Amino acid sequence: MPQMRRSIVMRILYVIPGTMSKTELGEEELGRRKKILQKNAGKDTVVDITDIEEGPSSIESSYEEYLSIPATVERVVQSEKEGYDGVILGCFGDPGLDAMREMVKIPVIGPGETSMVTAAILGHRFSIITVMDSVIPSLEKLAKVVGVERKLASVRSVNIPVLELGKDMEVTKKKIIEEAEIALEHDRSDVIILGCMSMAFMGISEEIQEKLGIPVVNPAYVSLKILEALISSHLSPSKRAFPYPPKLGK
Amino acid sequence: MPQMRRSIVMRILYVIPGTMSKTELGEEELGRRKKILQKNAGKDTVVDITDIEEGPSSIESSYEEYLSIPATVERVVQSEKEGYDGVILGCFGDPGLDAMREMVKIPVIGPGETSMVTAAILGHRFSIITVMDSVIPSLEKLAKVVGVERKLASVRSVNIPVLELGKDMEVTKKKIIEEAEIALEHDRSDVIILGCMSMAFMGISEEIQEKLGIPVVNPAYVSLKILEALISSHLSPSKRAFPYPPKLGK
Amino acid sequence: MPQMRRSIVMRILYVIPGTMSKTELGEEELGRRKKILQKNAGKDTVVDITDIEEGPSSIESSYEEYLSIPATVERVVQSEKEGYDGVILGCFGDPGLDAMREMVKIPVIGPGETSMVTAAILGHRFSIITVMDSVIPSLEKLAKVVGVERKLASVRSVNIPVLELGKDMEVTKKKIIEEAEIALEHDRSDVIILGCMSMAFMGISEEIQEKLGIPVVNPAYVSLKILEALISSHLSPSKRAFPYPPKLGK
Amino acid sequence: MPQMRRSIVMRILYVIPGTMSKTELGEEELGRRKKILQKNAGKDTVVDITDIEEGPSSIESSYEEYLSIPATVERVVQSEKEGYDGVILGCFGDPGLDAMREMVKIPVIGPGETSMVTAAILGHRFSIITVMDSVIPSLEKLAKVVGVERKLASVRSVNIPVLELGKDMEVTKKKIIEEAEIALEHDRSDVIILGCMSMAFMGISEEIQEKLGIPVVNPAYVSLKILEALISSHLSPSKRAFPYPPKLGK
Amino acid sequence: MPQMRRSIVMRILYVIPGTMSKTELGEEELGRRKKILQKNAGKDTVVDITDIEEGPSSIESSYEEYLSIPATVERVVQSEKEGYDGVILGCFGDPGLDAMREMVKIPVIGPGETSMVTAAILGHRFSIITVMDSVIPSLEKLAKVVGVERKLASVRSVNIPVLELGKDMEVTKKKIIEEAEIALEHDRSDVIILGCMSMAFMGISEEIQEKLGIPVVNPAYVSLKILEALISSHLSPSKRAFPYPPKLGK
Amino acid sequence: MPQMRRSIVMRILYVIPGTMSKTELGEEELGRRKKILQKNAGKDTVVDITDIEEGPSSIESSYEEYLSIPATVERVVQSEKEGYDGVILGCFGDPGLDAMREMVKIPVIGPGETSMVTAAILGHRFSIITVMDSVIPSLEKLAKVVGVERKLASVRSVNIPVLELGKDMEVTKKKIIEEAEIALEHDRSDVIILGCMSMAFMGISEEIQEKLGIPVVNPAYVSLKILEALISSHLSPSKRAFPYPPKLGK
Repeated sequence: MPQMRRSIVMRILYVIPGTMSKTELGEEELGRRKKILQKNAGKDTVVDITDIEEGPSSIESSYEEYLSIPATVERVVQSEKEGYDGVILGCFGDPGLDAMREMVKIPVIGPGETSMVTAAILGHRFSIITVMDSVIPSLEKLAKVVGVERKLASVRSVNIPVLELGKDMEVTKKKIIEEAEIALEHDRSDVIILGCMSMAFMGISEEIQEKLGIPVVNPAYVSLKILEALISSHLSPSKRAFPYPPKLGK
Repeated sequence: MPQMRRSIVMRILYVIPGTMSKTELGEEELGRRKKILQKNAGKDTVVDITDIEEGPSSIESSYEEYLSIPATVERVVQSEKEGYDGVILGCFGDPGLDAMREMVKIPVIGPGETSMVTAAILGHRFSIITVMDSVIPSLEKLAKVVGVERKLASVRSVNIPVLELGKDMEVTKKKIIEEAEIALEHDRSDVIILGCMSMAFMGISEEIQEKLGIPVVNPAYVSLKILEALISSHLSPSKRAFPYPPKLGK
Repeated sequence: MPQMRRSIVMRILYVIPGTMSKTELGEEELGRRKKILQKNAGKDTVVDITDIEEGPSSIESSYEEYLSIPATVERVVQSEKEGYDGVILGCFGDPGLDAMREMVKIPVIGPGETSMVTAAILGHRFSIITVMDSVIPSLEKLAKVVGVERKLASVRSVNIPVLELGKDMEVTKKKIIEEAEIALEHDRSDVIILGCMSMAFMGISEEIQEKLGIPVVNPAYVSLKILEALISSHLSPSKRAFPYPPKLGK
Repeated sequence: MPQMRRSIVMRILYVIPGTMSKTELGEEELGRRKKILQKNAGKDTVVDITDIEEGPSSIESSYEEYLSIPATVERVVQSEKEGYDGVILGCFGDPGLDAMREMVKIPVIGPGETSMVTAAILGHRFSIITVMDSVIPSLEKLAKVVGVERKLASVRSVNIPVLELGKDMEVTKKKIIEEAEIALEHDRSDVIILGCMSMAFMGISEEIQEKLGIPVVNPAYVSLKILEALISSHLSPSKRAFPYPPKLGK
Repeated sequence: MPQMRRSIVMRILYVIPGTMSKTELGEEELGRRKKILQKNAGKDTVVDITDIEEGPSSIESSYEEYLSIPATVERVVQSEKEGYDGVILGCFGDPGLDAMREMVKIPVIGPGETSMVTAAILGHRFSIITVMDSVIPSLEKLAKVVGVERKLASVRSVNIPVLELGKDMEVTKKKIIEEAEIALEHDRSDVIILGCMSMAFMGISEEIQEKLGIPVVNPAYVSLKILEALISSHLSPSKRAFPYPPKLGK
Repeated sequence: MPQMRRSIVMRILYVIPGTMSKTELGEEELGRRKKILQKNAGKDTVVDITDIEEGPSSIESSYEEYLSIPATVERVVQSEKEGYDGVILGCFGDPGLDAMREMVKIPVIGPGETSMVTAAILGHRFSIITVMDSVIPSLEKLAKVVGVERKLASVRSVNIPVLELGKDMEVTKKKIIEEAEIALEHDRSDVIILGCMSMAFMGISEEIQEKLGIPVVNPAYVSLKILEALISSHLSPSKRAFPYPPKLGK
């Protein structure tokens, strides 16, 4: 049995598909997120974080998803050249994930997809609590593409814009718990997913989990840990499923 | 019963999400396509055509689909301001269709989606004959999103790049017929869709239809005619399904 | 590219699968409907209307659907001989549509099927507002046969019999809006279909559309316009899907 | 626990939805079928058989299915008045089954539906061997309506018209076995259904079952036995699912 | 046509996969159930009943389902050697049904599966009323395995443990009716299944059926009658679907 | 953000649901597998391995699956008391996984389920290559239960019994590659799963992956790494989905 790589360092890049460093949140927020990821990473894992030069400040629509993709793909392609072992696409909607997988050979992980399959093995029916009603259709579409829509009980939103989630943490947390409780009661969910990366980095998922008494999937954690799992298992998305664009000559 | 609009002229814009005028095909090909569309349009319809300034020369991958979207959305937004009554997104993969529908109120039609629902009312099982194996996964994904995947018998490709389809028309036509015949025999299709706009404008769909003895859906024709049908029925995609991005303040 | 037919007149027959002219509504209602269709038809389209000699006065059950079919098929077969270019089967339940397609080569359009695929491209989830609870099961069955049941959010009824819909237009309109609003709120619909041809000809669809703020598909309009679209695109249902009955010797 | 009815005689009518007695087969064939049914019925069951006055001679298309329905419904309604305890609709395609259930309260059984659910509990994937390619689409549609399409592996035909099945019994039997073997090998079936009542009464199902080594469902047997099971269990199709046509005033 | 067996006696064993005779209910309850089954069986049918030596006292979880299987399979294997013509697995959850079918050639019937397919031919949407919330997930899973999940409207529970169902018959009956009425109203069911064998033997199904006005499927009755139907039709589960375990050397 | 556990040791038990130590393979094989797992585990992970006292020697049927469950559940319950942080159920068919999750609070991982969701994020269509035809139905059933059956392209077998897989490693490897190549070509798979734990521990998955050029999911690796991921993310299967058996009084 060939060994899985362990002795050497694993380098992971977390790419935010937006211009977060130019928003109010600034570089500081990037640093804060990096620290959280690094703290939770394996001992031999080094996590770096970056955002992109050109794109939306945050993503609450299909339109903003698409705006973010060209620069993010470019950043992912570059990361492979820089020797990263894997990339986390830092938006729950996984914008452009298939394109990134076409362009590189290293594993690129989407938090939406990863959280959904994790939820699928933790229970029978999961609900996603996300930011705004405007992203519900595209998360339902994502579940279909991932192939687990039969386990999706519902997508519900707190109707707080991404950039305001952190303004009043208590309000946000309370709203998330409220929507999750409706999902449990009304949609018969048995697993909850936090459906936004800014929620994921608020440090509230375990408190909510305790409160609800059912698993709460934090997309930041599971993306990190499952990417580590894939890298150490020498697994990368299938090039037969995500072929290199023929015209680009590889 | 409120009248449907008839007396006034209907203005339609066909937007090519790529830089066709900068390729070998050039402005001439745009002119040729416009002429075909105009000829087949209703008497009071005026069809204009345009491509985009920045984007891929042709689309044979998810990556190129995404590259095309930002400039195309912008062009569609502008077309609404210019008073167009509707837009055809001129690529069979419908790249960014949901974003365009978020950003405008006039109907935007995707040839892939439109062809698939047309095929769904013409038979029980349809096959799509497209250009390259590399686009098969994203057309299968499109069928799921449209919601007609239960009638999709197969997607098959001729493995000729978009920009070479016209190099030898006879070879292309022969290859399409060959793949369609396999679809009939092996996948039990009863309707064929030409799965690429450059195929659609080659003027071969009716000959192939006659040869095969089953309906061959030409995405250029049906997009045009169904867009006219929607406009004259005062129907436009639901803003509840495709809401305006909240942050952009409308 | 072969020209689509435009220069010559397009002749369409709207066949009511019931004995409307013998009901209270009488020939007058047929004339009124013909006028509405003609007004909304393309400039070169001539629309005729007919009902059948023997059959139900209106259709609110599977039983009445079947009663209507033999005479209606016969009328459709005859219409092809008379040179019509296409037929609209004038009942939302599309009774016997497959049989009609077996027996003729010209396109026969069912308003139920046509409205459902139109709704499928206008949004993510559609609801049908129909006349009586008794037809809900067969409309749900129709959605399965058409292949778009994944986008069907609900079928709801106003519980007013077909022949009484016009007795008090204001009540009917109010009831439709009420049910549609429940569909929006409770079933998360983003498109509404008027699920009865007598509703379609009441001239209320656009007012309801304005009121609800989402697309309201009028089966009369879309059947007419999509039939015109098919005829001008030289498309007819697949004879491989709807073969001529073998014993009848064609 | 209320007793199930046993002491009194159970009267069943087998209704052939066609004019068999007027074909070459004649009254004799009706008598022969009645005898087979009676022989296999429970001790207290009396089976009668009838065909209809007006309708197709045999059914190999949707068109002929619909032609058979009005007279057959009438016959079923009459049978309830005559005191029959249940009816078998004697055509594998179950033409008009829902209408019959709307019009009476006694159980009406369709051989297609009954055979499919029986096959569903005998294995994981079933195939139907039927008469002509022309009925394949409507049997696939039937499986969807019954709700067991996920277990339908395939519908295959011997391409022998109904009225010629008995001309050369050996040829017919050989053709059925050939198609069934393809279904086993190619479609991975583990249960076979004889998809035509004229096949069912040829007395060959058990020989084929022995030959193939897997269950062969005979629609005549299972319709009879399951109808007896329903009657003795006091079960009849739901009037909530198949409501009486509202206008007919019951 | 080979005769179906009628002249000889049909011997059926009802196996309770639990240690009922060791519970408070005792041998007496086994005797009572046998009597009910015998009374409702065909004239030539002899029904025996047995429980198992080692296993759970009742089944309200997946864990208890599994505990019951080894001894029950053994009892089923033995029953085939003893000459039984068929076996009813006496628990609504059908625990280990596939294993039993692997190990014997005689038909083994699961009440859950049998009731679901019976419900599927009686209406469009069925609900199961069962004992405890804890078995809802495994009944939903069973519907998927049977292949009729598209007709499953809901599983609801009265939240009374199996062994307490009979303590106050009136309370139990009232609770079942209450849950069934919610299923009708809220889940749009048109058929109800009693989802527990102890409910089935309480002698209340017909009273509930009368009260609700829709079919109430009693799993004890339909298992008995459909097993008789299979035996007399010479049908047994497919050995291709349920092959003998290869290592055990048959 | 609460820290994920890292500083302390993570203890994992791999439970073989069979009596492997009593077979020819003996304790030695258990030791060998433990070593492989330990080698691939995280630095702070301690892996133990055990089999069960009573059960089948290997699993190639549903019957043997069920035989293994009672003792394995007991072992899992005990492992929780012994302080293990998580358990891997060491059989690809995941026998009794739901029961184990009912009985404990620590995460229990099934290699079948875990491999399928991993495959679901690596490509569009996966195939499972397993030991014997006799387990194909239960793996197809597992895919339905997990909820990813829409991505399952096929289950294929090498038809070598579990206990003989290691007799001639070259033959086994060659057979696996052959079947995988058929899956790629014929079933259009883009990811392969080794569908048996004895295959997983043969040390051939990466060689096969290289040969095929697409991801080959090794269920031993991914179970280990994803269990580590769940433990470090504080995630355990939902007790709402897998409730404790009510009668057992917790």
